[in-house]
Amino acid sequence: MTKTRPAKTNLGRFFEDYAVGDVLHHAVPRTVSGGERALYHALYPARHALYSSDEFARQSGLPAAPIDDLAAFHLVFGKTVPDVSLNAVANLGYGEGRWLLPIYPGDTLRAESEVIGVKQNSNGKTGVVWVRSRGLNQRDDCVLEYVRWVMLRKGNLEAPAPETVVPDLTKALSADQLVIPKGLDFTGYDFVQAGEAHRWGDYEIGEKIDHVDGVTVEEAEHMLATRLWQNTAKVHFDATARPDGSRLIYGGHVISLARTLSFNGLANAQMIVGLNGGAHANPCLSGMTVRAWSEVLDKAETSAPGVGAIRLRLVATKGGEPFALRGDDGKYLPDVLLDLDYWALMPV
Amino acid sequence: MTKTRPAKTNLGRFFEDYAVGDVLHHAVPRTVSGGERALYHALYPARHALYSSDEFARQSGLPAAPIDDLAAFHLVFGKTVPDVSLNAVANLGYGEGRWLLPIYPGDTLRAESEVIGVKQNSNGKTGVVWVRSRGLNQRDDCVLEYVRWVMLRKGNLEAPAPETVVPDLTKALSADQLVIPKGLDFTGYDFVQAGEAHRWGDYEIGEKIDHVDGVTVEEAEHMLATRLWQNTAKVHFDATARPDGSRLIYGGHVISLARTLSFNGLANAQMIVGLNGGAHANPCLSGMTVRAWSEVLDKAETSAPGVGAIRLRLVATKGGEPFALRGDDGKYLPDVLLDLDYWALMPV
Amino acid sequence: MTKTRPAKTNLGRFFEDYAVGDVLHHAVPRTVSGGERALYHALYPARHALYSSDEFARQSGLPAAPIDDLAAFHLVFGKTVPDVSLNAVANLGYGEGRWLLPIYPGDTLRAESEVIGVKQNSNGKTGVVWVRSRGLNQRDDCVLEYVRWVMLRKGNLEAPAPETVVPDLTKALSADQLVIPKGLDFTGYDFVQAGEAHRWGDYEIGEKIDHVDGVTVEEAEHMLATRLWQNTAKVHFDATARPDGSRLIYGGHVISLARTLSFNGLANAQMIVGLNGGAHANPCLSGMTVRAWSEVLDKAETSAPGVGAIRLRLVATKGGEPFALRGDDGKYLPDVLLDLDYWALMPV
Repeated sequence: MTKTRPAKTNLGRFFEDYAVGDVLHHAVPRTVSGGERALYHALYPARHALYSSDEFARQSGLPAAPIDDLAAFHLVFGKTVPDVSLNAVANLGYGEGRWLLPIYPGDTLRAESEVIGVKQNSNGKTGVVWVRSRGLNQRDDCVLEYVRWVMLRKGNLEAPAPETVVPDLTKALSADQLVIPKGLDFTGYDFVQAGEAHRWGDYEIGEKIDHVDGVTVEEAEHMLATRLWQNTAKVHFDATARPDGSRLIYGGHVISLARTLSFNGLANAQMIVGLNGGAHANPCLSGMTVRAWSEVLDKAETSAPGVGAIRLRLVATKGGEPFALRGDDGKYLPDVLLDLDYWALMPV
Repeated sequence: MTKTRPAKTNLGRFFEDYAVGDVLHHAVPRTVSGGERALYHALYPARHALYSSDEFARQSGLPAAPIDDLAAFHLVFGKTVPDVSLNAVANLGYGEGRWLLPIYPGDTLRAESEVIGVKQNSNGKTGVVWVRSRGLNQRDDCVLEYVRWVMLRKGNLEAPAPETVVPDLTKALSADQLVIPKGLDFTGYDFVQAGEAHRWGDYEIGEKIDHVDGVTVEEAEHMLATRLWQNTAKVHFDATARPDGSRLIYGGHVISLARTLSFNGLANAQMIVGLNGGAHANPCLSGMTVRAWSEVLDKAETSAPGVGAIRLRLVATKGGEPFALRGDDGKYLPDVLLDLDYWALMPV
Repeated sequence: MTKTRPAKTNLGRFFEDYAVGDVLHHAVPRTVSGGERALYHALYPARHALYSSDEFARQSGLPAAPIDDLAAFHLVFGKTVPDVSLNAVANLGYGEGRWLLPIYPGDTLRAESEVIGVKQNSNGKTGVVWVRSRGLNQRDDCVLEYVRWVMLRKGNLEAPAPETVVPDLTKALSADQLVIPKGLDFTGYDFVQAGEAHRWGDYEIGEKIDHVDGVTVEEAEHMLATRLWQNTAKVHFDATARPDGSRLIYGGHVISLARTLSFNGLANAQMIVGLNGGAHANPCLSGMTVRAWSEVLDKAETSAPGVGAIRLRLVATKGGEPFALRGDDGKYLPDVLLDLDYWALMPV
């Protein structure tokens, strides 16, 4: 039977549809409310006080508790999916991510991406596209930006290979590239209400923390989360889309699970402000029990009162011993789901 | 063992409990907030921009993004269940549905129904009841109305058959019967933010659109949705209520799934304003992968600036080829779940 | 393999870590919004009009619909878990619970507990700890208080047994100990909108009500609910935490299921104001179909206009005949999940 491409339906773009310099204006703008916040707290074991309590946020110099930093990330990411990764073979990596402004209930987010790199693979059938995506609020302020690169299929194998452009990405943001929310002040920080006594000064570079807790993932949960961010990738929702009949869990769901599990040991790593890199080492499927561990990669002072920056590796696993990451071959172990590198803000 | 009817518990009404002209005042009023909106977006792949973004709604002449049109429908419908369909053998159809006023966070809805038809079946054991249901806000404005008819069992087989009254229902609302929200103006419509370029003028009567995407349904999801609308019908929640041990999914859940899936190809069919008819062709159960296709049935101009009306057939399936609806015998094919006929508003 | 206690991770406290008079200040404060209310209505068949409709609440003398009384309870309870019951062998009971102030969207709750009793068990390996927990709002008003006692393991078996202190708890609060929300007035109560005609005067002490409906519980649902209250107990989320591979459902989830099911027959038992006692008779697991029945234990007049108090036993079951509670041996029958004793307010 012949399948014709439906005239009015978005079937996604292919590798040859991207050129360096293109700017993609993503649909659909979204106004957030306390509803999104409540759902984030139902979907993940989210407990960071700054995002949970208006009072705690005010004591920290903010007007109210923002929407969780990763919820803001997912909202922007979801909008990019129909234009960037609907036909992605693989989500290869993230980098140069920065949170520039907190999001509050009532804010409306939209997103756009600039194509900053393309490289056809030697097989002639696929290629890698790099985009820098930005989230913008209703005042056109950029609230969030990050680079993502994905492997895409070519739709037309006859399309000529574009000139290769591989962007020169920073391996890790330096602390002075991080943007501290205006007014943030941890000098009056309440460690008891925050849940742990460990301050920035108590963490050492190289220190590893086993976050102990685990969450067994259900289909309904990851679908609710992924839909909430208006992420439309078929593989997350349609059990018939993959040959094995399982639904692939959105990588961002694993990021949020790991980050929120990391509360236990890193309760004071309050705000994520930088995303240096990230890899989804192995697919996550329903029924797996996700755990997390962290490693302190770096520390830096900031100009904000009482606020230090900490660079963390966050690893999500579906089993195995904590702190195991790669095998003798240098490859991620089969139990590793996520290896994320981010900067957070802590009370000094 | 003898079962006595509990004195204080609502076991639902039977066919003989309805008389033409009766008005049923349904419990429980409900105030909506951003929470209901967020949940709607988590439960369904809802992406229509007018319901997602306050900014987009304001650019379209509304004060803010309303609660999704079908969420408003489910809220009203749910209230009618304890008085109308708790003991329904079948939900036979809908008609003459009109959305009269958008619902905003802070609004409180209640519902009432007038019995407009009764017809005892020839078997003497069941009958059909027609009700016209209305949703009212805190100012007693009617925000929504529709006719529904259900088949009910008789509780007392000795009860005399009532005089048959079958209401004369319009097969389809004409465009001039549709109510356009005050102020709605699509002359400054942002097609990029809305997600698709196709405008009212791009659709032809008879055109069919395959919406491509599918969602595999989970028990937890349809129960969350159905409870949110305070729909209390046992069959949706109690796995012991049906002989096969499965839970029957609320028909409205299938309507919302199909409508939100139809974004892909009908992203600009923003507001539902009329419901001409609808049939739940086959039951939907957990584990099914729901897909949708649409057919353009009619088009009409409206008096609102930049706003056209489009009449659509929306079909939900659990498999089979797109656009297949009925077999040679004229009956719905076994893979068809829903056949809905509605009017929506689009930018011209 | 030797497991060392991670330095920065909360593994919970042991019996010897509690001393009478200790005050535990629990993390994490939480601001509630319409999101939490919407989720409560999605997770449970909640229909009590006072918590569903701002209009109904205003007609009853309150400024708006409060967050559901049990949602407030779960929010406070959840905060106590990391400090009180992370290592609990069993949650033995509740008592002396009082709701002191309604919670509204925008309120921020925190919690603290005072240790009021300790008793080492004769086996020397476990002990019972009694705490009086209090929820406080952003103005430091106490909104809720209750006593809970749990059995905990000793971490160090060599730790000396503390002096036994068993608090003298009231078996049931008397009606004059109940706090009626300021302004509450049921003289203009709308029984039609509330859903049932039965008033306080219609209930007799000793009367039993079968609430008829049932809900089959899914893993995703109880995890969403339990996380929403920031309850971190492993057994609810981690399928590997229990030898049988199942997740134990948070007892509070069963309380909310039973209470909301009790709408059918007790729709006018609007506000819970006292918790006399409660026992989780048997564990609840996913797949069980939860039903409920109630028994009127007592009635009392109150000083508030039109408001009566009713003391109810609320029993949740997973099968069996309604009204069956204990076997000939005096023990709870295996189908009984919950036996709760509470005071509610009704229109007289």
